[in-house]
Amino acid sequence: MLDSALQFARTNKQAHLTRLCDWLRIPSISTLPEHAGDVRRAAQFAADFRKEMGMTSVEIRETAGHPLVFATWNGSDRTSPTLLIYGHFDVQPTDPDHEWTIPPFEPVIEGGNLYARGASDDKGQAMAVLAALESYLKTSGELPVNVKVLLEGEEEITSTNLFPYLRQHAQELRADAILIVDQDMLDPEHPVIMWGVRGNLYLEIEVRGPAHDLHSGTFGGSVDNPINVLVRLLSKLQHGDFRKILVPHFYDKVEELTEEERDLIAQASINDQIGMHLTGAPSLGGEAGYPLAERVSVRPTLEIHGIAGGFSGEGMKTVIPSKATAKVSLRLVPHQDPEEILDSLHLFLKSHCPPTVKMDIRVLGKAHPVKIDYNSPAVRAAEVAYERGFGHKPVYLRGGGSLPIVHEMIKILSKPDHEIPIVMIGFGLPDDRTHSPNEKFSISNFHHGIETVIHYLDQFMTV
Amino acid sequence: MLDSALQFARTNKQAHLTRLCDWLRIPSISTLPEHAGDVRRAAQFAADFRKEMGMTSVEIRETAGHPLVFATWNGSDRTSPTLLIYGHFDVQPTDPDHEWTIPPFEPVIEGGNLYARGASDDKGQAMAVLAALESYLKTSGELPVNVKVLLEGEEEITSTNLFPYLRQHAQELRADAILIVDQDMLDPEHPVIMWGVRGNLYLEIEVRGPAHDLHSGTFGGSVDNPINVLVRLLSKLQHGDFRKILVPHFYDKVEELTEEERDLIAQASINDQIGMHLTGAPSLGGEAGYPLAERVSVRPTLEIHGIAGGFSGEGMKTVIPSKATAKVSLRLVPHQDPEEILDSLHLFLKSHCPPTVKMDIRVLGKAHPVKIDYNSPAVRAAEVAYERGFGHKPVYLRGGGSLPIVHEMIKILSKPDHEIPIVMIGFGLPDDRTHSPNEKFSISNFHHGIETVIHYLDQFMTV
Repeated sequence: MLDSALQFARTNKQAHLTRLCDWLRIPSISTLPEHAGDVRRAAQFAADFRKEMGMTSVEIRETAGHPLVFATWNGSDRTSPTLLIYGHFDVQPTDPDHEWTIPPFEPVIEGGNLYARGASDDKGQAMAVLAALESYLKTSGELPVNVKVLLEGEEEITSTNLFPYLRQHAQELRADAILIVDQDMLDPEHPVIMWGVRGNLYLEIEVRGPAHDLHSGTFGGSVDNPINVLVRLLSKLQHGDFRKILVPHFYDKVEELTEEERDLIAQASINDQIGMHLTGAPSLGGEAGYPLAERVSVRPTLEIHGIAGGFSGEGMKTVIPSKATAKVSLRLVPHQDPEEILDSLHLFLKSHCPPTVKMDIRVLGKAHPVKIDYNSPAVRAAEVAYERGFGHKPVYLRGGGSLPIVHEMIKILSKPDHEIPIVMIGFGLPDDRTHSPNEKFSISNFHHGIETVIHYLDQFMTV
Repeated sequence: MLDSALQFARTNKQAHLTRLCDWLRIPSISTLPEHAGDVRRAAQFAADFRKEMGMTSVEIRETAGHPLVFATWNGSDRTSPTLLIYGHFDVQPTDPDHEWTIPPFEPVIEGGNLYARGASDDKGQAMAVLAALESYLKTSGELPVNVKVLLEGEEEITSTNLFPYLRQHAQELRADAILIVDQDMLDPEHPVIMWGVRGNLYLEIEVRGPAHDLHSGTFGGSVDNPINVLVRLLSKLQHGDFRKILVPHFYDKVEELTEEERDLIAQASINDQIGMHLTGAPSLGGEAGYPLAERVSVRPTLEIHGIAGGFSGEGMKTVIPSKATAKVSLRLVPHQDPEEILDSLHLFLKSHCPPTVKMDIRVLGKAHPVKIDYNSPAVRAAEVAYERGFGHKPVYLRGGGSLPIVHEMIKILSKPDHEIPIVMIGFGLPDDRTHSPNEKFSISNFHHGIETVIHYLDQFMTV
């Protein structure tokens, strides 16, 4: 059963790649309302493939937002364990568009890589899972374990409608472990098992001053400029030299690592040289006093993702704008609570906001940080699968990104006496430029990934 | 001669308004390269009108940028004084376009006002001058004094090409005084004689970090975010509470007013209530320790006119952008030198810029501050002209805006032993929203303005 599945995967490499390219041609950008139809088309594409391969049931499920696709295979006997697999088919926006060297939704293969928006995050990785299932079903007509696959279309907009769905369908989704395939390896020889993710608090801050734009000659000196005020407020959030976040009580619940945890993270070959290479920055930055591997995974951050106000065209305009806005997020680490951080930040900014302007803070997204028991058998099974699928032992790392669903799945799908193990693996690479122009996915990682999932399903029989 | 000119102006009100509307329909936005043809059309329009009214000579003069229009009338005898009149026919951009209630280049008359981009700044005011000249020429066939009229198309982009033009044509432009008609009155009953302008230093600051946009989950903590750094740098330029500019040596050359000067400014009915009404701000701001009338005219300011970086569309994007930019200007007061301020600011920002990013500072515009002798006879003649044209005595104020040409004209056109008097008057109102959406011009001010210029030419005979 295992061997014939592996054989199928090897002889159908081109077919799997072609199918992925077809999926990537659908511009399923979940954050842009004008692409809602495309997100639905991407759902339908995944549903059609799973029907064709012979899953027991495949359904497109509606939500208040974009739909999701749920499929099951329950042909194994009742004593077989059940694995819930999660992935997503929505993608990030493509701006700045002029920096793409190819149209983002017309996949191009070059130098062993597949270039397209979503190639790595997450259609390429989700397709590796689907191709692994197909490899079993098209050869043996069955899977080694019972499987439920849930693919959503709102991961890039914090899975808002997945949460009520999970609560409403907790019984149907019951499983012995959850496999999430949506992350990077360190490099082609170092796959990663992720034993946690950072949380996130994503805000939009708006400062409004005069009722309309004013000429800075006539009115300069009479009012506070909303950009000047916004810049001053934002600058108060973070220390200029040590990059510490200055929101009161921000670090109160941040735990220091144990020696064992610190050693585990230190084993990963993440060093400044690699950081310089991957980012192209003049020199590295971030919080003082912690090594790079910890700064990007177990330490909180504050990033201004976007700022806008006034005139930014060519040339000069001597305007005092009526408003300015910024998009800001804080990455949170166990056991920081997004709600508590929000309250504290809100009070802090209010206390510094002058009466010359009005300030609004809108919450665009929230995700809890999570820490996973890396000694759970379902997690350790991934180590074997990686070794056989890639020929390399994985490293155990904490993830710097945020997957809001991880915390929600644990909360909703755990049994009262036992926290459900979450197994986080993935086949991306750090230079895949996910969320940026010219996103790519390594084609050899795609094929090794398919084999890794085939091995994981085989290993999962015994957990 | 005076009476027949006044009579002509009164019976041709509609014709003058119609001609102004035709001029306003030309979108002569000097800062946008795609409107270069429109700036030229606006020049041709002004030239045609002056030919038609019977000026001695009218020429479109080429520069390295937009053209200017020079016209003369030299029919008076050699002992008559010569007045050089300056104005401009270029306009500001129209963004944010969605805030306009009418298309900006389709003039609309409503409630005694004429709405269009450029209605007040400066086509409406320049047309008042041209209509005054026409009123003399079409009735008496002559003007009371020798007149030279110079209209340019680059005032809104700091008159870069006017400066070499002035130097090359200094002999041709020789005059006994210069009249500039491009400013606001305090309100319909308080015309203004401006005895100085603020200078300006307009910069674009760019901060570049990583070589391309990065995912803040994967890379957050590894690099300095260019927006975070830009915000921190900008916040260092100004004190949060007192709004003092913190660039070293910035205030070294700023002079305090004499008692007489302070009294002159205090006579203007500029109070906080008017400021609140005109700006619609929640409360007034600006430098601590100075009254509103001084803050907007004789004190320096720092404004961020525009800021941009990262993602500002709808929804969320967790990106660390590769760069961020801001447009910043400092209004300068006598005797601050833009070059010295630039050097100091450059050193200051460099000293605070971390090695994790690259920073560039580009100078987009520079203007020297100017102070004028308000007791000069050519200036005092404007007091009489206003009293007769508007029926109200003017107030003597310093201007908050910057007219780079004022300093240049004084430098280039003064005689070795005598500084040429600059007479700055105007017919705009503070709520005209120049440089903002829904710019307007009071139609009664337009007609009173025409009569004021007619009276000024009459008064100028005797200076």
